[in-house]
Amino acid sequence: MENSIKALINSIKPLEEAAMEAARARQDTLTKPPGSLGLLEAISIRVAGITGEAIPQIQDKAVIVMAGDHGVVAEGVSAYPSEVTPQMVYNMLAGGAAINVLSRHAGVRTAIVDMGVAAELEMTEGLIDKKVAPGTANMAQGPAMSREQAMRAILAGAEVFAAEAEKGLDILATGDMGIGNTTPSAAIAVALMDIDAQDIVGRGTGVDDAGLQRKIQAVQSALNLNQPDPEDGLDVLAKVGGYEIGGLAGAILAAAAARRPVVVDGFISTAAAMIAVTLAPQVRDYLFSAHCSQEHGHRAMLEWLDLEAMLDFDMRLGEGTGAVLAISIIEAACKVLAEMATFAEAGVSDKEADPQPA
Amino acid sequence: MENSIKALINSIKPLEEAAMEAARARQDTLTKPPGSLGLLEAISIRVAGITGEAIPQIQDKAVIVMAGDHGVVAEGVSAYPSEVTPQMVYNMLAGGAAINVLSRHAGVRTAIVDMGVAAELEMTEGLIDKKVAPGTANMAQGPAMSREQAMRAILAGAEVFAAEAEKGLDILATGDMGIGNTTPSAAIAVALMDIDAQDIVGRGTGVDDAGLQRKIQAVQSALNLNQPDPEDGLDVLAKVGGYEIGGLAGAILAAAAARRPVVVDGFISTAAAMIAVTLAPQVRDYLFSAHCSQEHGHRAMLEWLDLEAMLDFDMRLGEGTGAVLAISIIEAACKVLAEMATFAEAGVSDKEADPQPA
Repeated sequence: MENSIKALINSIKPLEEAAMEAARARQDTLTKPPGSLGLLEAISIRVAGITGEAIPQIQDKAVIVMAGDHGVVAEGVSAYPSEVTPQMVYNMLAGGAAINVLSRHAGVRTAIVDMGVAAELEMTEGLIDKKVAPGTANMAQGPAMSREQAMRAILAGAEVFAAEAEKGLDILATGDMGIGNTTPSAAIAVALMDIDAQDIVGRGTGVDDAGLQRKIQAVQSALNLNQPDPEDGLDVLAKVGGYEIGGLAGAILAAAAARRPVVVDGFISTAAAMIAVTLAPQVRDYLFSAHCSQEHGHRAMLEWLDLEAMLDFDMRLGEGTGAVLAISIIEAACKVLAEMATFAEAGVSDKEADPQPA
Repeated sequence: MENSIKALINSIKPLEEAAMEAARARQDTLTKPPGSLGLLEAISIRVAGITGEAIPQIQDKAVIVMAGDHGVVAEGVSAYPSEVTPQMVYNMLAGGAAINVLSRHAGVRTAIVDMGVAAELEMTEGLIDKKVAPGTANMAQGPAMSREQAMRAILAGAEVFAAEAEKGLDILATGDMGIGNTTPSAAIAVALMDIDAQDIVGRGTGVDDAGLQRKIQAVQSALNLNQPDPEDGLDVLAKVGGYEIGGLAGAILAAAAARRPVVVDGFISTAAAMIAVTLAPQVRDYLFSAHCSQEHGHRAMLEWLDLEAMLDFDMRLGEGTGAVLAISIIEAACKVLAEMATFAEAGVSDKEADPQPA
């Protein structure tokens, strides 16, 4: 299993410079002042490098929403009970959650995955069953999962990506559902960044001050007790992670290996991206950060990843909600590159070499 | 004519509090932690207040792109020659400009208006002819236009809005095309904000250092010579404005009077919004700022308007390009309010009153 993960990591290549150069050159022939579309131009150039296509097309879009439960909720770290995880999975399968509404809006299909929900889910149309275990163990009292389970989570995520790619997939968004999962996400960040827990841990779905203190305490206890090795992404995932986080890390690795852009949602998805980048630093170039979450600490995590968030909407819902909004903007950026007329085509005069007063 | 403008202004009413209250209450019943969709929730609530509908629907969307030329280009303030204005109008009518690509992406229809292009445009399918004059006079040597022409521009903009509303219109985006038009836009801002020209004037489509100095000089000369009255929006528009800016101000006033949300694009559209707000301060509540332009000074103008930009993409193209991207997000926000399942509908447990460690 460790070999499968190594093979996956080794298949991730650098961006294609030639495609980026061609995209950059084309941007400068389009009927606008050079650089005047700012981030949209930069996005289109990077997608060219990711896909290896000078004029990349984004048509098939999917968000993979990974669900899991967390033993650490026993420490009183969440404002909602764990029973909400399966309830929200059903809500997503029925099309009533925020991610469904926003995915329909952006023309993105949803893949809802049980990575480790602590309930037996009824087989429902659309549900992808990759359950590693019914919830993690309480990381404040021992490792969240075994190293073997961490590897299974990552490979399951890669399988989910492969199945989606089979259907046609030009861009991937990541999403999560799991009561309590801001706590392991914060623990992952603290472990990898060597930073104080209080600088990362936030209120999640909305705990009060006492709940916030319990979260900080739980993260500190988990790290002190388990001593995850920050050089070893699998060790961090196993000791203080979650199944949905591992699944997302695996999907991210597989998407990068398949040269697909990945739009990373908020706090939990970013923790998954940190695991993926720890395992394979070259993944970073395949990532777009959708938005800066309202969750305390997310900005520092993005800095660690050297990613700049596209949107800053004070969102903190997860599910991939920010990522599907960002997908629409990346798609728009690629359409600009593909569809705008050039100066020559439109018969528009280019910039004056040196404008002078008449 | 002045009476028509007064009547328009007087027909602009405050937002409907009851609709906002209903939208706010509904947001808190949807299957997400309260407030967790951040700006999307706030947007949906304001659109409810604007439209008077507790669950507003956004289906018909249009961007009005107003084109005009500027006598002040004689001062060497632009990197492009004025001939580019009609060329770009034809490019837009042919569907090859950035605004066409982004409008198609967002499902927004375009209305391309000649407000004052300094060339006789061939009658082309889709072109709306509201030409007040073939370009403004050079404001560095006298008023850009007469007060009567300023009023005609505003009323023409209101007529364009009315024609679009007739076709069905749930939200309006503003856009502009006009070589040299960052210069009058900056002059409007300096006149209204009582600020130094160098704090507002930027490089527009890309003038060099010498061009930037000529722009600052042109703005200062125009203001010193014409002495526009900052309390009188029509006077500012006439002395240092432009026909497309006046047209946009008129369309904004008419949209607010018709209770439609207006998405204000970048630097030029924001100058038009400042004219509209100077004429009718209650317009402000109907405005969304799409994005913060890379153009120097735009941020201060948004602060003056007390608007926060939705996007920050280093764009500086105009045409309405930022506004149509933002329309898609406002539409998404309204869909969230309309389409998400409630806790009761989805059978999802609501927040625990006081989560405790197990």
